[in-house]
Amino acid sequence: MGRLTVNRPVTRITLTGDTASSRRRPDTLVVEEPLEIRVGGEALAVTMRTPGHDVELATGFLVSEGVIAAPEDLRQAIHCAGPSSGPPAADDGNSYNVLDVTLAPGIPSPRPNRSYSMTSACGICGKDSIDEVRTVSRFDLGADATTVPAHTLAALPDVLRAQQTIFDKTGGLHAAALFDIATGELLVLREDVGRHNAVDKVVGWALQQGRLPLRATVLQVSGRASFELAQKAVMAGIPVLSAVSAPSSLAVELAAASGLTLVAFVRGASLNVYTGAERVTLATDAMDAGASASGRAAAG
Amino acid sequence: MGRLTVNRPVTRITLTGDTASSRRRPDTLVVEEPLEIRVGGEALAVTMRTPGHDVELATGFLVSEGVIAAPEDLRQAIHCAGPSSGPPAADDGNSYNVLDVTLAPGIPSPRPNRSYSMTSACGICGKDSIDEVRTVSRFDLGADATTVPAHTLAALPDVLRAQQTIFDKTGGLHAAALFDIATGELLVLREDVGRHNAVDKVVGWALQQGRLPLRATVLQVSGRASFELAQKAVMAGIPVLSAVSAPSSLAVELAAASGLTLVAFVRGASLNVYTGAERVTLATDAMDAGASASGRAAAG
Repeated sequence: MGRLTVNRPVTRITLTGDTASSRRRPDTLVVEEPLEIRVGGEALAVTMRTPGHDVELATGFLVSEGVIAAPEDLRQAIHCAGPSSGPPAADDGNSYNVLDVTLAPGIPSPRPNRSYSMTSACGICGKDSIDEVRTVSRFDLGADATTVPAHTLAALPDVLRAQQTIFDKTGGLHAAALFDIATGELLVLREDVGRHNAVDKVVGWALQQGRLPLRATVLQVSGRASFELAQKAVMAGIPVLSAVSAPSSLAVELAAASGLTLVAFVRGASLNVYTGAERVTLATDAMDAGASASGRAAAG
Repeated sequence: MGRLTVNRPVTRITLTGDTASSRRRPDTLVVEEPLEIRVGGEALAVTMRTPGHDVELATGFLVSEGVIAAPEDLRQAIHCAGPSSGPPAADDGNSYNVLDVTLAPGIPSPRPNRSYSMTSACGICGKDSIDEVRTVSRFDLGADATTVPAHTLAALPDVLRAQQTIFDKTGGLHAAALFDIATGELLVLREDVGRHNAVDKVVGWALQQGRLPLRATVLQVSGRASFELAQKAVMAGIPVLSAVSAPSSLAVELAAASGLTLVAFVRGASLNVYTGAERVTLATDAMDAGASASGRAAAG
């Protein structure tokens, strides 16, 4: 892992009625640094991210962009300062800010500015606009018959928060975590200043583990559910995306069009299911229901 | 203004101990749509934004990118479906998703993929990396001697929240607001699914009003202070950026390097000043101090 936090002096001002006092004290900040992702030596994107797990971030980003979908689609990922690993299965933890990915022979390179233009269609809005910006996934979520008890979903934000090692120090990080529905096990959690980066790191981890598509899992995110996060879930074959806070209209539309179950406003004793409600069960015995959901997923 | 919210049915699940119940009800979602920004017919960027104030968004984005800095740098801004306005001073409120900006003669067009590559420097981190990604502002914040009482800063988040018309409906919007330090007046507030968009809309508004550089103002944002938001404040000549939540390391480094006063964790009776603390006064009489700050700013 790279440096996740830095200390910096801050002037803390405290107000009491009409008076104010100040004192200098150290403060812990989350680290934000640019990472340039290159493919075959060509610059593809610059993202402002928290250093660490850079190989996961870059490879997860390439999954989200529809460039790769399996470990064998990659040959290597090298930090500019030197090899990060032979096969891109490890993260050497330096915080250098340029990472070059070499694709396997036969995997087409992405166009650098794909994300920067839509088609020439004019005046699109609502449902049509999804087709302008979405990337079609290799994985069919409709084939994933996973179900998950509402009680299980309701408990995930607390698990996420309890595992967030950096957030309590800085208040500045988003988290994304992947849970196995059958066992309730937390598979991986990543934190980043950018919530899209946190999700890319989770997806990059799964790619390296040979786990794509991520059937029978829930992706729990600490903030809102935007189009971009829904897109990343779909591209990784994740059947359920759950957000602590609000979803956007386009996230809901993409989820509906893709067979993604989108859950949001997961707060204490309630949650909202926007799409794919057939995957969420009201069973009172969460453990039994979990086991049954797993059985169904394996059959699906 | 475009459509800011849409209604959509949602399955609301409520848990009570081991039991769960569900009901369908309508829910209000914040609208997220792609906007393609073109300059001279060439695609420059696609941003996922909340429709409305698209001309402000596009022109504010161009200020942030260092392309323009005054109303006369623009000739027109036209939604793909038809003219938005002669001079880009109005917003016709449609929600079409392609906007083409024509620059005034002599204003160089930006390179479409500027944001997608850094220089070839390798292994940069910390302070050096700022130079890789920052855009140099035409406006010198060091020349802005504005001061602002801590009590004034402490009150801004509540004003922001009270004015946020959409947030309470959807929980899904970021807000950015510009305050006149001397009068405490709220000059403009914009909401968007993307906090960078909310700030671009504020800056675009100011450009259209001929108010750049935005001396003697505070930009108050509803979330965290990232590098990107600090950069936008600097590019618009705003001397004070105040965030409700945490700043990132690179936001603080850019603020320190640019003469920007960066305030964060503004919560109730306390706030943290990370850089430019000389602009924040502890005066007990906020109104007097405000007036004096204004006087100094005019002189600065």
